[in-house]
Amino acid sequence: MASTATEVEKAAPPPVPAAKDSYAVADVVLRFLVFASGLAAVLVMVTSKETQVVAQIPIPPFLVRRAAKFNHSPAFVFFVAALSVAGFYGLITTLISLFALSKPGSHTRLVSHFIIFDVLLLGITAAATGAAGAVAYIGLKGNKHVQWNKICHVYGDFCKHVGGSVAVSLFGSVMLALLILLSVRSLSKKIPRHNHSH
Amino acid sequence: MASTATEVEKAAPPPVPAAKDSYAVADVVLRFLVFASGLAAVLVMVTSKETQVVAQIPIPPFLVRRAAKFNHSPAFVFFVAALSVAGFYGLITTLISLFALSKPGSHTRLVSHFIIFDVLLLGITAAATGAAGAVAYIGLKGNKHVQWNKICHVYGDFCKHVGGSVAVSLFGSVMLALLILLSVRSLSKKIPRHNHSH
Repeated sequence: MASTATEVEKAAPPPVPAAKDSYAVADVVLRFLVFASGLAAVLVMVTSKETQVVAQIPIPPFLVRRAAKFNHSPAFVFFVAALSVAGFYGLITTLISLFALSKPGSHTRLVSHFIIFDVLLLGITAAATGAAGAVAYIGLKGNKHVQWNKICHVYGDFCKHVGGSVAVSLFGSVMLALLILLSVRSLSKKIPRHNHSH
Repeated sequence: MASTATEVEKAAPPPVPAAKDSYAVADVVLRFLVFASGLAAVLVMVTSKETQVVAQIPIPPFLVRRAAKFNHSPAFVFFVAALSVAGFYGLITTLISLFALSKPGSHTRLVSHFIIFDVLLLGITAAATGAAGAVAYIGLKGNKHVQWNKICHVYGDFCKHVGGSVAVSLFGSVMLALLILLSVRSLSKKIPRHNHSH
């Protein structure tokens, strides 16, 4: 009985309009991916805490337990804040865009309202990815010129979390960029061909 | 004679079309600002070299002359590369957009070709600004958790250059975001009001 119910659900997909609204469907999918990557990036980053026994540098024989946490770096805090906003925005706009799917024709107006926030969030997400990536790179490679020592050979798990989080956030930024291009394409399709000098 | 010639030049502005092409004029101005800020950011960053006499950390009484240069940090190298591309793109598209001003009606088609690169460059410029800003912030404040010492109290001029360059680049990113929004607005103005269900 349960499997029959599942098959019935599969056989009855949600009322997706015809091919001319494929932009709207792609819009929903991309917005959901923005939400998912924002959520994943934040979760992976905030669960990155790792504690290791390390030598206290000024007094070498004195070993201490020291934790690496994301909030030790302002760049990572900015990253978590930015990706939280992006994920939340992704969730809200996925729901609104899904709702608009059920009302054909209302999608273009919605898109032109969202696009200002899409652009804003693309900038913020890309900046956060760059900031976290730059700090993570110093953690991985160090910088001999200014004696910033690398830390990833000690806090390997922490660095794996940070790297994964930055990668997911890069994916989210690309999704936001595609979302803007999709909206622009959907808008420019609505311009009549004879309307060039208007 | 020379001042008269200048006044004549001032009295004869380039042939700017009427108000309906104000989007095209704003487009040219914004693209020029992208070019200018890209150029300024790169110039300020590459001229940031500063040499100071500092104590060699492992052997304190041994003083060495040591330079701080932008290419000591991979984040700053990425920044210079990204802003060079943005500035060059700004220059090329300013010229093309100026050329399109002289042919009324051709601007919307141009805009829809540029917008994919505008979005791409917004992402790259914002990421570069974030990366350079994050490294500059560590240089300014240091990070006690991982013993990354601050360097801006020693290399003050270097840090001023870096900070100025990051600020200019942030301005350039905002200009790129405005450019995308302007293009979208210009596109959506061309959609006829009765065309909602088309």
